[in-house]
Amino acid sequence: MTSDADPVLSASTARDRIASGALSCTALAGHCLARIEAREAEIQAWTHCDPQSVLKAARRLDGASAQGPLHGLPVGIKDLFDTHDMPTGYGSPIYAGHTPASDAAAVALIRRAGGLVMGKTVTTEFAFFNPGKTRNPHNRAHTPGGSSSGSAAAVAAGEVPLAIGTQTAGSIIRPASFCGIVGYKPTYGWITPAGVKTAAWSLDTVGVFAADVPGAALLGSVLSGRDLTAAAQAPSPPRFGFCRTPQWDAASPATRAACDTAIERIAAAGGDVEIVTLPAVFDELLAAQETVMAFEAARCLAFERDRHGAQVSDRLASLLEHGATISADTYQAALGLAARCRTALADCLTDVTVLLAPSAPGEAPLATEGTGDPVFNRIWTLLGVPCVNVPGMTGPNGLPVGIQLIGDANADAALLQAAQWLSEAFENPPSTA
Amino acid sequence: MTSDADPVLSASTARDRIASGALSCTALAGHCLARIEAREAEIQAWTHCDPQSVLKAARRLDGASAQGPLHGLPVGIKDLFDTHDMPTGYGSPIYAGHTPASDAAAVALIRRAGGLVMGKTVTTEFAFFNPGKTRNPHNRAHTPGGSSSGSAAAVAAGEVPLAIGTQTAGSIIRPASFCGIVGYKPTYGWITPAGVKTAAWSLDTVGVFAADVPGAALLGSVLSGRDLTAAAQAPSPPRFGFCRTPQWDAASPATRAACDTAIERIAAAGGDVEIVTLPAVFDELLAAQETVMAFEAARCLAFERDRHGAQVSDRLASLLEHGATISADTYQAALGLAARCRTALADCLTDVTVLLAPSAPGEAPLATEGTGDPVFNRIWTLLGVPCVNVPGMTGPNGLPVGIQLIGDANADAALLQAAQWLSEAFENPPSTA
Repeated sequence: MTSDADPVLSASTARDRIASGALSCTALAGHCLARIEAREAEIQAWTHCDPQSVLKAARRLDGASAQGPLHGLPVGIKDLFDTHDMPTGYGSPIYAGHTPASDAAAVALIRRAGGLVMGKTVTTEFAFFNPGKTRNPHNRAHTPGGSSSGSAAAVAAGEVPLAIGTQTAGSIIRPASFCGIVGYKPTYGWITPAGVKTAAWSLDTVGVFAADVPGAALLGSVLSGRDLTAAAQAPSPPRFGFCRTPQWDAASPATRAACDTAIERIAAAGGDVEIVTLPAVFDELLAAQETVMAFEAARCLAFERDRHGAQVSDRLASLLEHGATISADTYQAALGLAARCRTALADCLTDVTVLLAPSAPGEAPLATEGTGDPVFNRIWTLLGVPCVNVPGMTGPNGLPVGIQLIGDANADAALLQAAQWLSEAFENPPSTA
Repeated sequence: MTSDADPVLSASTARDRIASGALSCTALAGHCLARIEAREAEIQAWTHCDPQSVLKAARRLDGASAQGPLHGLPVGIKDLFDTHDMPTGYGSPIYAGHTPASDAAAVALIRRAGGLVMGKTVTTEFAFFNPGKTRNPHNRAHTPGGSSSGSAAAVAAGEVPLAIGTQTAGSIIRPASFCGIVGYKPTYGWITPAGVKTAAWSLDTVGVFAADVPGAALLGSVLSGRDLTAAAQAPSPPRFGFCRTPQWDAASPATRAACDTAIERIAAAGGDVEIVTLPAVFDELLAAQETVMAFEAARCLAFERDRHGAQVSDRLASLLEHGATISADTYQAALGLAARCRTALADCLTDVTVLLAPSAPGEAPLATEGTGDPVFNRIWTLLGVPCVNVPGMTGPNGLPVGIQLIGDANADAALLQAAQWLSEAFENPPSTA
């Protein structure tokens, strides 16, 4: 799943070892800190990580009488989430040195569950497109993707078993694909957005990164209040619908090959794949997502634009300018189209359990080219349906290429079950003799 | 509409006088500050108002070359919205003295439009039920309602022509009814929630208070990016559907009389009222709102509960405890019921333009009894449909009693048009000779 240089940490394995007494929270924290120390100069996944504070918190967890579901598991926090005890910069110089008065609710829920907040991970500027410093652990000339750049890279580099992020266009699934890890964007609204800097309120979705599907299900359960862990541990062959989406022209040969490979592996493992063609109503859905994002961003960042405009990047400033020109009628029509597509998608998902589609156009681009294109993620974010990136393939440059599974709204358990089944199909390839 | 002691300020009148040069921003600000000075000891609507800063900002507006749509209009800001230059306490001692790094997006949009931020108004604790210090301008023994207590009272007392608030259960419509002013809760999602302390993300709705419907439409237009002002200025007789709602048993004689009066006035003014009975699917909708609110609040306030539990009121702590016991299945079922009711409501709104229903159980209760019951607001908040309180009647204690109009989602312009028509019908009663 990753190169030998990047042994990702399984959250569920770590949790079992802690529960059995084979591993202390302090030892696990020390392992992660050493890993960060070894890799940070190259990868630059973190905006803040204070080893002494982390070890102190780990020792406190080792001395605690009760063990929550995340007991002792280190978690990276995208620097778009407020933290009361760590600087929170939202990827912008405007907030350099800012420390909020409170934790984002998701951070508080992680702490309540015994999770060890490891530090803050790099985000692009306000979760839009202006890149941060982070590089892809598989090849530092390449981007880890964005906007949850640091969270994806930290998990992929084995620095933490778990991390949280957000997706407004393609900020969980795309970096997960580029970094070769599991990314899980739940159904819109499943995880509280309280205390997360708002980029676009109809789109912003909190999600998670992990080395494997059970890890993503574990953290997703804590944050959503649902029990997703059983499904992820008991995979059964789902019915897959291969869906090229109206954006198929953007798929590189690497992504097309990944789709072919996934379909072959599914068939070899005894699964079922049929072709699903989205109805014509989906053709304008990508543009609708762009409309909603720009319209809402222009409102959400009004303070930053008006008071600190000189510290807003040109690219973001252009997006905000564009958003301010979109009429409310156009915006409302885009939301209306999304509502119609949600109904149409539910119809598509009666014969199949999940859709299978590209996670990204291909391997991670060079870092000099930006954070990559969310073209294969935007429509699902607008629809609010749950998505998982399943890693397991490699492109011509030796970089990871994942595949995206998409479920119906609120059918996250079935989606994670399908993702785990597909992961196992990838890990146990058929004999090619 | 209000007693002689409480001359409410019309935003559109003030705006026209400023535009014509008859009134300067500084003079208007001075008038409002004098009014606050005169009434604050009794009403206590404000957590923060610094006259020198307000006058300085007003002078700057008087010297500005351009005039935005809110040019010079003083606006009260519920202390649930972040302000970068004023303390923001969210109604809780946990945040005493806290000043955020940024303005909530709605506040930034008000400033961008030339609005004069007058200060912060009292909210109940995190917009739930623990009352603040504010009293009803019509009788200081009574509550102004909650949670937007200070915003409603400040407008009703003529201290500001406009104010903003939020509604999670009944926090705009109920205080507007108790205070005898216009309250407008737009369609869910119309106004950006960025920078507003989250109480329950599926319910929280930013809205406005004003002396009259055109004022509410003006501020609503600025905040939502829609043009609602034309509709409010050109009322035409709508078709009203009188809807007792499944909560009718909670209506006091004062509220029942207000409904009768409203229906009489509509008929006398040449309008049409028919009876609308909500289908049985609505019977459990009130309980569904309570479920969604408690489930989400328990997540949103996780930091405050875990880190500052001693400073959370008993009543709020009970709500959070209760919310933590609600299963995800029960929560999901409540959201599912809301989705079905939205469809059913749209069917009800094919023959009539708006529904007419109680705003509150009756007149404002005594302040010692809390902030009143949102029983007539909860279902509409959960549905996300726009609501307006139209003032104009008085109960047996001489306190205001309003009537609630409810429109279909995104049909806010038609709703405001109906509200203005009804306001005019109230202001021009038929001859009773």
